[in-house]
Order: sequence, then structure tokens, then C-alpha cells
Amino acid sequence: MTQSPVRDSELLDQRDLEEEEEEEEEEDYFDYFYDEPGSEPGTLSIEPDAKPSRIVLIDYDADHAVRKVDVTPNALIPYLGTNTISWMDVQGLGSEKILKQVGDIFKLHPLLLEDVVNVPQRPKVEDYNEQLMIIVQMVRSASDDEGFESEQVGFVLGAKYLLTFQEEEIEDCFDIVRDRIRGNQGKVRQSGPDYLAYLLLDSIIDGYFPVLENYGDRIEMLEDQIVLHPDNSNLEEIYSIRRELLSLRRSIWPLRNVTDILVRGRSPLISPDNQIYFRDCYDHVIQLLDIVETYRELSSSLMDVYLSSMSNKMNEVMQLLTVISTIFIPLTFIAGLYGMNFKYMPELEGRWSYFIALGGMAAIAGGLIFFFWRRGWFKPFYAVKKD
Amino acid sequence: MTQSPVRDSELLDQRDLEEEEEEEEEEDYFDYFYDEPGSEPGTLSIEPDAKPSRIVLIDYDADHAVRKVDVTPNALIPYLGTNTISWMDVQGLGSEKILKQVGDIFKLHPLLLEDVVNVPQRPKVEDYNEQLMIIVQMVRSASDDEGFESEQVGFVLGAKYLLTFQEEEIEDCFDIVRDRIRGNQGKVRQSGPDYLAYLLLDSIIDGYFPVLENYGDRIEMLEDQIVLHPDNSNLEEIYSIRRELLSLRRSIWPLRNVTDILVRGRSPLISPDNQIYFRDCYDHVIQLLDIVETYRELSSSLMDVYLSSMSNKMNEVMQLLTVISTIFIPLTFIAGLYGMNFKYMPELEGRWSYFIALGGMAAIAGGLIFFFWRRGWFKPFYAVKKD
Amino acid sequence: MTQSPVRDSELLDQRDLEEEEEEEEEEDYFDYFYDEPGSEPGTLSIEPDAKPSRIVLIDYDADHAVRKVDVTPNALIPYLGTNTISWMDVQGLGSEKILKQVGDIFKLHPLLLEDVVNVPQRPKVEDYNEQLMIIVQMVRSASDDEGFESEQVGFVLGAKYLLTFQEEEIEDCFDIVRDRIRGNQGKVRQSGPDYLAYLLLDSIIDGYFPVLENYGDRIEMLEDQIVLHPDNSNLEEIYSIRRELLSLRRSIWPLRNVTDILVRGRSPLISPDNQIYFRDCYDHVIQLLDIVETYRELSSSLMDVYLSSMSNKMNEVMQLLTVISTIFIPLTFIAGLYGMNFKYMPELEGRWSYFIALGGMAAIAGGLIFFFWRRGWFKPFYAVKKD
Amino acid sequence: MTQSPVRDSELLDQRDLEEEEEEEEEEDYFDYFYDEPGSEPGTLSIEPDAKPSRIVLIDYDADHAVRKVDVTPNALIPYLGTNTISWMDVQGLGSEKILKQVGDIFKLHPLLLEDVVNVPQRPKVEDYNEQLMIIVQMVRSASDDEGFESEQVGFVLGAKYLLTFQEEEIEDCFDIVRDRIRGNQGKVRQSGPDYLAYLLLDSIIDGYFPVLENYGDRIEMLEDQIVLHPDNSNLEEIYSIRRELLSLRRSIWPLRNVTDILVRGRSPLISPDNQIYFRDCYDHVIQLLDIVETYRELSSSLMDVYLSSMSNKMNEVMQLLTVISTIFIPLTFIAGLYGMNFKYMPELEGRWSYFIALGGMAAIAGGLIFFFWRRGWFKPFYAVKKD
Amino acid sequence: MTQSPVRDSELLDQRDLEEEEEEEEEEDYFDYFYDEPGSEPGTLSIEPDAKPSRIVLIDYDADHAVRKVDVTPNALIPYLGTNTISWMDVQGLGSEKILKQVGDIFKLHPLLLEDVVNVPQRPKVEDYNEQLMIIVQMVRSASDDEGFESEQVGFVLGAKYLLTFQEEEIEDCFDIVRDRIRGNQGKVRQSGPDYLAYLLLDSIIDGYFPVLENYGDRIEMLEDQIVLHPDNSNLEEIYSIRRELLSLRRSIWPLRNVTDILVRGRSPLISPDNQIYFRDCYDHVIQLLDIVETYRELSSSLMDVYLSSMSNKMNEVMQLLTVISTIFIPLTFIAGLYGMNFKYMPELEGRWSYFIALGGMAAIAGGLIFFFWRRGWFKPFYAVKKD
Repeated sequence: MTQSPVRDSELLDQRDLEEEEEEEEEEDYFDYFYDEPGSEPGTLSIEPDAKPSRIVLIDYDADHAVRKVDVTPNALIPYLGTNTISWMDVQGLGSEKILKQVGDIFKLHPLLLEDVVNVPQRPKVEDYNEQLMIIVQMVRSASDDEGFESEQVGFVLGAKYLLTFQEEEIEDCFDIVRDRIRGNQGKVRQSGPDYLAYLLLDSIIDGYFPVLENYGDRIEMLEDQIVLHPDNSNLEEIYSIRRELLSLRRSIWPLRNVTDILVRGRSPLISPDNQIYFRDCYDHVIQLLDIVETYRELSSSLMDVYLSSMSNKMNEVMQLLTVISTIFIPLTFIAGLYGMNFKYMPELEGRWSYFIALGGMAAIAGGLIFFFWRRGWFKPFYAVKKD
Repeated sequence: MTQSPVRDSELLDQRDLEEEEEEEEEEDYFDYFYDEPGSEPGTLSIEPDAKPSRIVLIDYDADHAVRKVDVTPNALIPYLGTNTISWMDVQGLGSEKILKQVGDIFKLHPLLLEDVVNVPQRPKVEDYNEQLMIIVQMVRSASDDEGFESEQVGFVLGAKYLLTFQEEEIEDCFDIVRDRIRGNQGKVRQSGPDYLAYLLLDSIIDGYFPVLENYGDRIEMLEDQIVLHPDNSNLEEIYSIRRELLSLRRSIWPLRNVTDILVRGRSPLISPDNQIYFRDCYDHVIQLLDIVETYRELSSSLMDVYLSSMSNKMNEVMQLLTVISTIFIPLTFIAGLYGMNFKYMPELEGRWSYFIALGGMAAIAGGLIFFFWRRGWFKPFYAVKKD
Repeated sequence: MTQSPVRDSELLDQRDLEEEEEEEEEEDYFDYFYDEPGSEPGTLSIEPDAKPSRIVLIDYDADHAVRKVDVTPNALIPYLGTNTISWMDVQGLGSEKILKQVGDIFKLHPLLLEDVVNVPQRPKVEDYNEQLMIIVQMVRSASDDEGFESEQVGFVLGAKYLLTFQEEEIEDCFDIVRDRIRGNQGKVRQSGPDYLAYLLLDSIIDGYFPVLENYGDRIEMLEDQIVLHPDNSNLEEIYSIRRELLSLRRSIWPLRNVTDILVRGRSPLISPDNQIYFRDCYDHVIQLLDIVETYRELSSSLMDVYLSSMSNKMNEVMQLLTVISTIFIPLTFIAGLYGMNFKYMPELEGRWSYFIALGGMAAIAGGLIFFFWRRGWFKPFYAVKKD
Repeated sequence: MTQSPVRDSELLDQRDLEEEEEEEEEEDYFDYFYDEPGSEPGTLSIEPDAKPSRIVLIDYDADHAVRKVDVTPNALIPYLGTNTISWMDVQGLGSEKILKQVGDIFKLHPLLLEDVVNVPQRPKVEDYNEQLMIIVQMVRSASDDEGFESEQVGFVLGAKYLLTFQEEEIEDCFDIVRDRIRGNQGKVRQSGPDYLAYLLLDSIIDGYFPVLENYGDRIEMLEDQIVLHPDNSNLEEIYSIRRELLSLRRSIWPLRNVTDILVRGRSPLISPDNQIYFRDCYDHVIQLLDIVETYRELSSSLMDVYLSSMSNKMNEVMQLLTVISTIFIPLTFIAGLYGMNFKYMPELEGRWSYFIALGGMAAIAGGLIFFFWRRGWFKPFYAVKKD
Repeated sequence: MTQSPVRDSELLDQRDLEEEEEEEEEEDYFDYFYDEPGSEPGTLSIEPDAKPSRIVLIDYDADHAVRKVDVTPNALIPYLGTNTISWMDVQGLGSEKILKQVGDIFKLHPLLLEDVVNVPQRPKVEDYNEQLMIIVQMVRSASDDEGFESEQVGFVLGAKYLLTFQEEEIEDCFDIVRDRIRGNQGKVRQSGPDYLAYLLLDSIIDGYFPVLENYGDRIEMLEDQIVLHPDNSNLEEIYSIRRELLSLRRSIWPLRNVTDILVRGRSPLISPDNQIYFRDCYDHVIQLLDIVETYRELSSSLMDVYLSSMSNKMNEVMQLLTVISTIFIPLTFIAGLYGMNFKYMPELEGRWSYFIALGGMAAIAGGLIFFFWRRGWFKPFYAVKKD
């Protein structure tokens, strides 16, 4: 899901109908998943462009750590009975058969499997007694540095395993966790799958900060532009910032609920010692919400600033028109007056009449210029010249 | 209940008084049902244009499934005592006699019968001990692809039967459920009437998504139009989108409460195993509310964008006027000056005076043009030419 | 309490100081009752223009129903000890002596009596152990079909009687209930005073719907006018609609609390069987709030639409001015140019000079007209001509 | 604390720097008390301009009532042990010694004494086991009938006494209570200090109503002015109404909490029989909040109305300009055309040319006037003439 | 963290790209701390420009008080076992080694240490059984009297010690507390570390008041300027006030929660006698929130006032233009009329024609001036002249 205003505005220039239709298919204002009305609950809706599924297994305890790539679902079975911690990472949600096999092996409830496979879902946590399902959205700044991309990550936390489902392989933050397991850094190898889930969740949540920071920068730049040189493109920029922040908030808001439930520790799958770590996640989510709301208020203030700047600009235009008109209209009238062809116009005859008329005009113009200067109407023109 | 802005604006052109009055009778901003003040509770108010009632019976268990059309109320009695699941679907709320017979046979409380028959009601769920009443609004996009139509559906859930009341036969989503019963797909034939109620409720809720998606598309199209060519019709379009979203929210908001009550499982008529399915409905309703609120915020931002675009347009108009006036007013003054008829005007006599005057005029015009060009006042005119 | 914007605006035309003062006395933006600061609690404040009190008694049970008009308070005493249901309806709150007698006979708490007599109070329900006091506001559309009138109704519900206090006799909806008692329709004669209180409360609540519908119609009409012909009077109309909706909401909002308390059945004076009826009232109040909020949002959107329409109109005015000025200013300059009196102006001498100048002017005018036509500036003038 | 917009605007005219500084010292946008950061809790901060403290004692029971003025703190000691009710009223908070003595005699907690002496505090109620502290703000309309003054009143309710602290002697409403004690009116002499506290609190709360009514009148007057003759002073008036309503709300909002706590009767110092009276106070506070919020919404609507009125006015100005310009610009062009000095201009020679030209001009002017008349552009000028 | 709008606007003038980049590094719209995504919880992130850490120890009981500067962490160990109260104040968060040693000695949880060291965090209170962690933001007005600086202070409250962490040495308010300990003023020497924590927290909270007062003054000054001479710089000022108030609210809002938790006394580390003091803190925080919200509403009203003032100004400009144009355009037309060169123009010949024409012009001008004077269009020009 990419929301890039730049591409939007390019589109407007091209205006090819065919392209617009293509566009509509691949990108929507707000993505959401809904079943075909009337479809059976638990139906897997594999999207045609979904990546094929592959499973990466990491099995570890305090003493060893093994990593296997492209494991078949059946090869996971031996790891279920052991006392070691197993992290099965399903990358790509395109292979219905593999997903169903995984569902059977782990005895996943049909609705659970539907939720992790049919993307995007609203972030949530649900307790299926033996298993705890957590669904969150991961975001990263889009490659063109405008807008952001989001991707769903599903966790299924069991007593001795953690099952994760991703739309495509997430490199950055998951790799760091992998390295930590391999390198036996920190306490991850000494802890259960709940601590592993915390590490992954925490890195997903921390991934929101740089995305938000990006919006902070864009708002700051916009403010400068709007105050100095407001133009139409600012309007589109504000609008798309607002739209994208709305969309971000839709991802973050339910995270508050998700982490709150985890902190409250209703599930026996999360050990009391590790609850304090989820409290840390909760704190970060609250901070994210704070920032999103702040940026939304700022972008809304920016719209006011934009309107005021436009009004300022219009005022300057009108002042210029008024200054010029008000000075010249009386002069032109006087010129017209002595351009009349009446036979008896005594002034016309005088030797110095012309110069007197010119002097009068100069006096009127001077008086008006002084009047406008006193009222500060020339200021905006000085100001801009300096710039 | 159709809310179609297109018909509204056509009406404004026709302006026939008689037609307007007809209009008022058949369509209101917001439909709602209220008793004649002072009327007896439990009174059935049959609307004159309501469709005559017919009953479709589907009786099934794991082993068989029977469908009977146009059943009389009395013919339903034998099915009440059996162990099979009976779905009695009352289509059309126009036959007071049939409705009252149904009420007597199923021992419906007068207020319950009033609620399912007197449309439209606010969505709600009420527990009458032996029966659980659920009232929801079904929506579908209007046939002319603008606005939406809504229709009330009432459920009465008993231990072994499900009674549904519809204003007119709902084809699409109910048929799919019927097919599933006939074809013994999924677990519907193995489950009780609560699961059947879930299936129907779920398909009604999922029916809101395409309607909302329609509004997403309209908002997206409007944004493009407003930024490029804002005009008066956008205003009406924004207003009617806002009005219709308000109306949609009025349908969806109480659904949250309805599904929440069902999830909490206060009624013994919903088996604990099936509560998890209603949790799925609840999730979808939350998502619907999310989307409605998002669209309302976007449509409100659009109004700001519209106002700003109008202000932009005005600015361009004023700039054009100011540029033209400011350039020509001084020139016209000079021309007027030398059109004066004073006897002694030395300049008039010179051989090259005229050309000097012309040159001076050109210099003034050039200076002003340079001044405006430096300040970027010609930009909007280039920009539009490209378009 | 009448809130009629028409009379407001008439007043503005008359502008007689005396009349304004009179006006202020009889009508306020928002009526509310407050004691003289420091006055004894329980003081009855009889307003000078209050109607004299008369008592109408209806005594009934399943077998009989008696109605007596203009009963003295003492004549009520015999009915207190009997097993029949007595409805004592006090119409008019102007006779302090009668009201105090009633207070003594029914042993009303001084604060209770103060609340039912000193109008208007905020709707509320208060439990005085032996008695349940309910205060609500009744509304009806004002006779001139703009604004609404409101009147306080106080209920004192006892074990075997219902005491009602009205500012003046309410005809419509109370009569229907009276007829039902007389005609033994429905279950009123078989039920206690709580059911009677429900019937009256329900008819008062249902009386809000036609008043609100009136506002829906006014908003709909305003929208048409604003989009086509916005003018200053729309502004006043929007403002008075907003003010009156605020006032309506102030009456309805506390009703929510009132009916909620009744539904929860904290008082033994309401039998559990009849609580379900108050649930019906509660539903209607929620629906009323829904509608009021919706209308408030719509009226607020209308203000935006009005501002945009004004801005549109201004844009058209400015475009006309700009079109006319931009076309004629250059032409007038050329005319002025050749009106100069320089001795040596070679063009003036040519045989076809005049026609060449005319042609040049026509070319310039044509070019500018084409420019404006391409940019669509003539559209608003066509559009309005059709209208 | 006086908030008088009139004085504000006078100040702007005077613009004496010295005076402005003085102003800043004595009057702030929002008064609030805060300790010097780091100061010891319980420090009394006596303001330099605080009135010297005097104590008025009223001692009464059902049989007698004694009033003593200017009592020394030590003279209060004998009244503490008796069974009569003692009301000690401390007027003026300027004498640190007296206040500390009172604190010692009544064993007031240092924080309690700080709260009643260091004004202004936020209204609150705090339970110090043996004593109940209540702090409220009293308001009255400012003497110049614009804005309001507020003053803090602190209550310390003991088992047999009531201690009140006022910034200066409050005459009106407290005198009425004093008279009632002296005259043995009502039940005050038969009741405890809790009933006395209720009487005083009630008269303070009722004192808000006339202040708010004042704002209702100002809003009503403003509306008339804005619709007819909007000007810049309206803007300041709206702004100061909004600011003062914000300030009033800051006083009233915490009162809701204060009265709510008193109603809930957590303290044994308030007898159950008298709780019902505090419920009356609570009702009034809710009504006050209702009114404040309503006025805030109305004043916010007024800002919209003002903006629209300005926009209307601008529209009229522009229409006038456009009408005049559009009619005369073409005529002036024609006049200029025939003012050209070309040698060969056949029209100039004709006998009736001049009159034909005049006729053509009249026709053009007539056509344009008809065009503007049809579009209703002359209406605003009629309208205003009538006014 | 300095937020100084003055520096912002200076920057805009300089516009050096390099400088802008530097700026971005050192100052952000909103500071917040986030871990590198995927980093180990409990990692200390020492900022490169953090001040080196030094520890100041104050050890006291009722009888003695000792102060030691630049203590090494190990030198703190002897003070842990004693019965005296020890306040260890860690100033500067730049020395990872010292911080880790402190963490080891006091057995701080890794997340606790992370929270106090990695600045800035959201204010919060967390209970680690043996220790209570409190994190708050301290603010002070920036040195250039615009904007404010904020600094994090972390408290770790143990049974017999208080550990504080500051970014740099806070002089003012902490010194006062130090002096009070040394001088044995108040009850600090007789109380435990919870009372000490209260004193410090209270002085931090009271430090917000002068910062807020500063904003009150700026808003008051802005209002005067905007009503009299609105210009573009007001817009930036309003925007930066809004931004900074948002930022302040982000600091204060969580303080409400922090103090509320402390008042509720969930931790045994706070003695019941001292809870009443934290109630005082809570009151002050509520008052701060009140003021912030009030200022935010006022600044939002100011934006409306600004827009209206701009609109007023534009109105005056347009009125001037319209007055001048409307008076002179008809006159110029008449002058043009008699400047035509038709051969037969009878008026031109008349002896008094010229004077009659002049008289007619004067009459028209006089009529128009009277018309405008009657409508009050000259008022704004008088008004400003007075000013």
C-alpha cells in the first residue's frame, strides 16, 4: 500500500483513462479487507499478486540456535514437541496449500487463519486459549521518500513456538533480531517465545518513528513555503499529508488497544516477568499517537495559514490596483476635461494654463502618494523587493 | 430510502411545485419512524406502499433441507415443535393479517412486532427471554450509482428457529446463504439458528463495504476536479456526500452496539462456540466506522480545499485585472495629457514629440511588465495554457 | 417560550425602543429558571402571567372510569386511600394556594413542589422514596410554523396515583390518552399509574418528531436557496436554525438520562413488566438525539456552503468586471492615443488609417474574447440566463 | 478580577506606555495563583493590596441568634465547645497574623489555610476528616455592566461551626442569609452548619445566572448589529465575549465536581437529610454549564455570521464597482473613439452623427442596466435605502 | 529543546542551505526519543553532546545534613544502609560508565535506567516494587524570552534514598530545596524521601506557570496588534504560539496521570501523611491544563480575528477603489463625450456650455459623495486618520 502524492499529481497530468483504471485497481485511498458478502467464514482469499509462501525456521534455546530456510510445513512437526523455542516465519501469503497445511499442523482456528492471511486487517489481539494471535501493520517510508508503505504482520504465539506471517520478507528489523539470536546477544536465548514476540513487536513499533519524522519535516518545509510563496501545490500537499496521517492513525490507534491487552497480561502465554517489556511497547504507542495527533493539528493550522496567506496576497494585489487607479483616475479626468472641445473654455487660452494644469496634477498625485505612504500601502512592495 | 443527489439537482431545474410536493412525500432527508403521538404501543403502522407479505420457509438439519415458498402462517406451526432448524423469512411488510398471525404463533411481544414491522427503526438488539430480536439496516448502492438505498431487516432468534422480516425480498446476499444450506456447504447445516443468524448478519455487514468504497471513489474524483477546475457543482457534491455519510454513520454506529452485545453473549440463545463468529462481525463494524469517519474528515478537508481553490481562482482573476489596469492606466493618462486642447503646449509642436511619447509609453509598459514578471504574476496564465 | 425568527426580524424593522424592552421581558434567548439569589429553598415563584390552576381528576380501574373537572384539592383526599388508579392533572401553575394545598395533601417535599411549579426546569427524574418525580419539556411547532413552543410537564408518580402539573392545558396528546382510558382501549385500565405515566411520557417524546421534521424541511429548503440564490436572509435563517436546534438539544439531552433511569428500574414504583415500555421511550430519545445532532452538522455544513456560494458569486462579479475592463481598457488607450494633438502624427493623415485602427481594435477585442471564452469565463453568465 | 472589554479598547486609544504597564500589573487575562517555585507548602502569600481581615461571628440555635462584629480570633474560642451553631465569617485576607491565629484555633491543616488564603484557587472540595474545605468563586457583573468580577469564597465546615473566608465583604446574597438567621425564617435555625453552608453555596451559584444572562443579552444585541451593520468593533466584542465565557467556564466547570462530591455525601459532616439540598445546587450548576456551552457555541456561530456579513458587504461593494465600471467603460471607449484625430473619419461629418452616437450610448447603457436589473444586482442598494 | 520562532524567521531570511541542514540536526519540531528499531531493550543511548555526569550527594536527617559534590558511584554505597535520608543527584547524562555503576549499585531494572537516561521520554510513573520511577519534563522560558526550553528530570524513589537524574544542573528551583534542607526550614528534615520528591516535583510543576504566563502576554499583545494593524508576521506568530502550546500540552497532559497515580498512593514508598501534598501537585497540574487549553482556544479565536481583520482591510481597500472609481468614471465619460470631434455638436457652441458641463459634473460628484457618505463608506478613512 503506497500513498505517494507525487504519483497522484503526475497522473493528473497524464489523464489517460486506461491508466486511471489500472491505477484504481492497484491503489485505493484506504485499503481494507472485506469478504465477498455472503462468503463462508474462514475462507482464504489469496490475492493473485501475493508472493509464494516460504517458511524460515529458527530453533533455539540457551545452548544452541539452528536456522533452516524453505522448510516444508511437515518438516515443522518434529519441532513442536521439543522443549526448545521455535520461530517459524512464513514469508509471502500466496500459497494456499502451504498456509492450510500450517493451519492444520498448528491447529489454527479457521477465523485465525483467515485473519492472518486475508490482508489487510485492523490490528488486534485475540486469545484462542492455546494460542494468542496478534495482528499489526508494519510501515516504512516509501522508496521515493514521500508517503509510506504498510505491510501486515501476524503473530501466533504458542507455549513453545512463535509463528509469524508476513506479506513479504521484512529485512531490516527482523534481521537484527535474527542476528541477536544467532549471536546470543541479550536475554533472548534465555527467554521464551513471548520475549521473542516482544522483540519483533517492539521493532515494528519503533519503525513508525522515522516514518512520522518524515511528516514532521514535510510540515516544517511546507510552513516556510506557505508563508513566503503560497501556491496551489501547497494545497494538494497539505491535503495529502492530512490523508496519509489519517491513514497512519488508523494503523496506530488499534495498536494502543493491542499493547494494552498484552500489558494487562490476560494470557498465560505471556510470563509476568516479560509483561514489563510490553509496557515499554505501550509507552511507545502512546507517544506515536501523541505525535500523529500533533501533526494533524499542525497540518490543520497550516490550512488556516495557507488561507490567510492567500488572503494576504490578494490584499496586496488589490492594494496595488487601488493605488494605481486612485492616483491616475483623477489625473485622467483632468486631462479629459481639458480635452473637451467647447468653444469657450477660458483656461485653454492662458499662457501658463498647461503648466498650471500639470502642476495641479502633480500636486494631486503627490498628495495621494503621501496618503498611501502614510497608511503603509507601499510596504508590501518594498518587502517583496528585498526578498 | 434512496438518497440520490442527481435527482435532487434535476428537481431544482424543473421547479414544478406539484412535483416538489410529491417529492416531499416520498423522500425525506432522514427517514425515521415515529408513532402518531399518543398512539397505543404495539400498534402496527402498515405503510400504504408496503409490499404484501409472503413467507419462505427453509427447514433443515444435518441430513435434509426443505424449502417452501408462500407458506401461510398456520402452516408454520408444525415446524415449531420439531428438532430441525427452521428459517422463516417474511418478505414484505404490507399484510397486517399475516404479520399478526405470525406474531400470535411465535408469541411475539407487541413491542417486538411493532419494531420489526414499523420501519425504519434504529438498529438494536433486545432480549425477550425466549427470543432475541435483532434489527439492522441493509444498504446497497442505488441503481444510478449515486447515493444508496437502505432496507430494514429484523431477526427473531428462537431456540430452534430464525424468523426474519424484510421490507422486500433481498436477493444477493441472502441467496448465497440459501445456496449454502441447500448445497450443505460449510458448517451451517451442522449448526443451530444462531450460526444462521450470524451468516445473514455478516453478509449484511459486508454489504456496507462496496457502498463505502463508492464514496471513497467519489471523494477521490472530487479532489481531482476541485484542484483543477473548481466549480459550483463540486459544492453540492461535497454537501451531498457529507449528508449521505452522516446518514450511513447513523446506520453503522448502533451496529457497533448490536454486535458488541452479541459478542458478550448475554443470551443463552447464542452458543459459546458461535460467539467467536460474532466477534468477527464486530471487527468488521469497527472497520466500517473507521472508514466512515475517515471519509467524513476527508470530505471536510475537501471543503477547505474547495474554498482555497476558489480563493486561488479569484486571485488569478484579480491579478489579471490588476496587470491589465496597471499597465494601461498610466499610458491612457499620458495619451489623455497630450489630447488636451491648451493653446500653449510646447511638446505638441516638436517634430519627434509623438515618437518620444510613444517611446516613453513603451518604456513604462515594459517596466511594468518586467515588474509583474519578476513577481511571478504571469505564471498562472502560462500554467493554464499548458493544461 | 416561543422562538420565532420571523418576529425577530420584524422587530429589527420597527426598532421602537419601548417595544424592544417589552420584548425582552416576555422572550429570552434561552429560558431558565433561577431563584432570586439567597432565597429560601422550596419557595414557590408564581409568575404574574401564569394561568390559574384547575384540577382534572380521572379515577379508574379495570371496571370503571370517572372524570371530574375543576376539583378542589380537598376533594382529592378520598381518592387517595382507594385501590383504584387516580390521575390528578393540575392545569395552570398560577394559584399558589391550590398548589400548596396539593403539596400538603400529597406530602410533597418542598424542593419537589418548587421543581414542578417554578418553570422551566431542566428535565430530570428524582426519587423521593414514596414518590417519583419526573420533569420533562413538551414541545410543539409554533403556530406560525417557524420555531417551536415548549412547556414544562411535571409528573409525581405514587403507588396508586399519578399527579401531573402543566403550565397550561395540553390538548392533543393528553386527550388521546384520556379517550383511551374512557374507551378502555389497550391495557391502560388493567395497568397501574406507571403505565399511565409511560403513555403520557411517550406521547410527549413522540411530539418532538414533527417539530424536528420541520427543521429538516427548513434545512432542505435553505440548501436549495443557498446554492441558487444565496443572500443575506439565508444567514439569519441558518443562525436561527442553529440557535433553535441548540435549544431543542438542551431539552432532549437530559431526557436521555431521565428515560435511562426509568429503564434501569431503580424505583419500586415502576413494575418490572412495564420497564420494557420505558425502554421504548429510551429508544425514541436516542433517535431524537441522533436527528438533532445530524441537523446541527448539516446546518453547520450549510454555513460552509453559504460562504462558498458567496465566494462563487463574488468570483462571477469579479470575472465580469475583469472581462469588461480587460477588453475595453486597451481599446480606450488606442482611442486616446490617436486623440493626442501632436502636430506630427503620420498615422493620422492616412486615408485608411481610421479603418485600420478600427480593425486593430476589433482584432484585439476578438483575441481577448477568445482568450476568456477558452478559459470558461463566460460560462457563469450563460448558466444564469438559462435559469 | 475585572474583565471589561470597554476599558481594553479605551486603552488602545490612549496607548500610554506607562499606563499599559500599570494595567498589566493589576489585570491579567486569566488570574491564577501559583507559589513561587520551590516555596514551602503552606506558605501564606498575602497580596499587598489585600483588605485587612475582620471577623464577624453569628452564633445561633433554634432559640437565639447573636451577631458580633470585629471579633478577635481568641474571642472565638468560647464558641467552639458549645452546642450552638457558630458562623465565623473572615472578611478580607490581608492580615497574616489574624489568619494564622484562626488557623491555630481551628487546627487547620497548613495546606487548607494556604488554599483559602492564597487566591484565586480552582474551585474544589477537600475532606480533612474533622473539616470539609470547599472553595468556590463568586461572580457578579462588573459595575460598568460589561464583563464580570470574581472573588474567592472558602468554606471550612466543622461539626458545629462554619468558617468562611472572603476577599472582601460580600453584601448582597450573604446579607439575605444573615437576615434569615436573625428573622428565624425557614429552617436554618433548626438545622446544622451544613444547611448554612448549603444556603451560602446556593446563593453564590444562583449569582452566576444574572451574569450569564448579561452575556445572552450582549450576544443577542451583537447578532442584530452584525447582520445590519457589521464593523470592526463587533470583532473585538465577539472575541472578548468568547474570552470571558472561557473564563466563566473555568469557574463553573469545577463547581460541577464540587457539588457532585457534596451530593454523594462522602463526608459525615453533611447530614443525609440535607444532601437533597446539595442535589439542588448540583442541578443549578449543570444548568449553568448548559448555558455557558450554549453561549460559547452561539458566539462561535456569530463569528461565522460576521465573516459572512463582511463577505456580503464586500460583494455589494464589488457589485457597485462592477455595475458602474461595466456601464461606463464601453461608453467612454465610444467617446474616445470619436475623439480621435484621424483625418478621414466619415462618421464625424454626418449631420446627425452626434445624436446617433448619443443614442447608441444610451442603448448600450440601457441594455446593461436591464441586464444587471434582471440579475438582481440593484437589490442591495434598494434594501439599504429603506433602512 | 528550544523552540524560538524568532530564530526560525531569521533563518528564513538567511536561507543558506548548509545552515538549514545544521539546524535540522540540532532542533526538531517535537523531540522524542526512540530506540534504533530492533535494538536491545535497556540499551543506553548516550547523545554525543550530553554533559559528563557528576553526582551530588546530600545526606540528612532531623539532626544533621551533609553535602558532597562530585562523589563517585562507589562512594554512595555506605549511605545506602544507613537510616538517614540520602539524595543522590546525578547531573549530566553523558558518562555511560558512571550511569551503569549507579544502575548496578541501586539495582535499577535495565528498562528503568533506559528511561531515565535516554531523553526525552514521555512523563510517567512506574512502580518497580522496591523503587518508584517518576519521569517529568521541566520547562523554563528560553533566554531570548520567546519559546521555552525543556529538560527531563528522572526520580528514583527508594525507602531511604532519592535518586534524581538531570540532563544538566538545574539551578533555580532545586537550589531552594537544597537551601531548605541545609537551613532546616519547614518539615523536610523531619520527613522521608517521599516528601523530598514532593518538594522537587512541586517546584518543577510550579515552574510551568511563568512559562505559560509568557504565552498569555504574547496572546494579549497579538490581539492588540491584529485588531489595529494586522500583517503577515502575526500569522507566523499565531502559528508558532499554537505549535509551542501543543508541545507544552504534550508535557503537561501526562503529568496529570503521573500526579494522579501518586495521589492514589498505590506505592508503599509514599507515606499516607504525604499523599495530601501530592494532591496539591495534582491540583496545580489540573490548573496548568486549564490554562493551556484556554490559551489554545484563544489562539484559535485569534486566527479567526486575524482572518476577519484581513477581510476588513480588504473591504476598506475595495471601498476606496470603488468610491474613487465610481465618482470619476462618470465624470471622465462626460469629459470624453465633449472631447468627441463630431462636426455638429450644438452644445459645444454655447457661451456657457463649458460652465454648465462643469456644473453638471460637480452635481454628479456631489450626489455620489453624498450617497457614499450616507452609507458610511468614508468612516474607515476618518477612523484611521485619528489613529
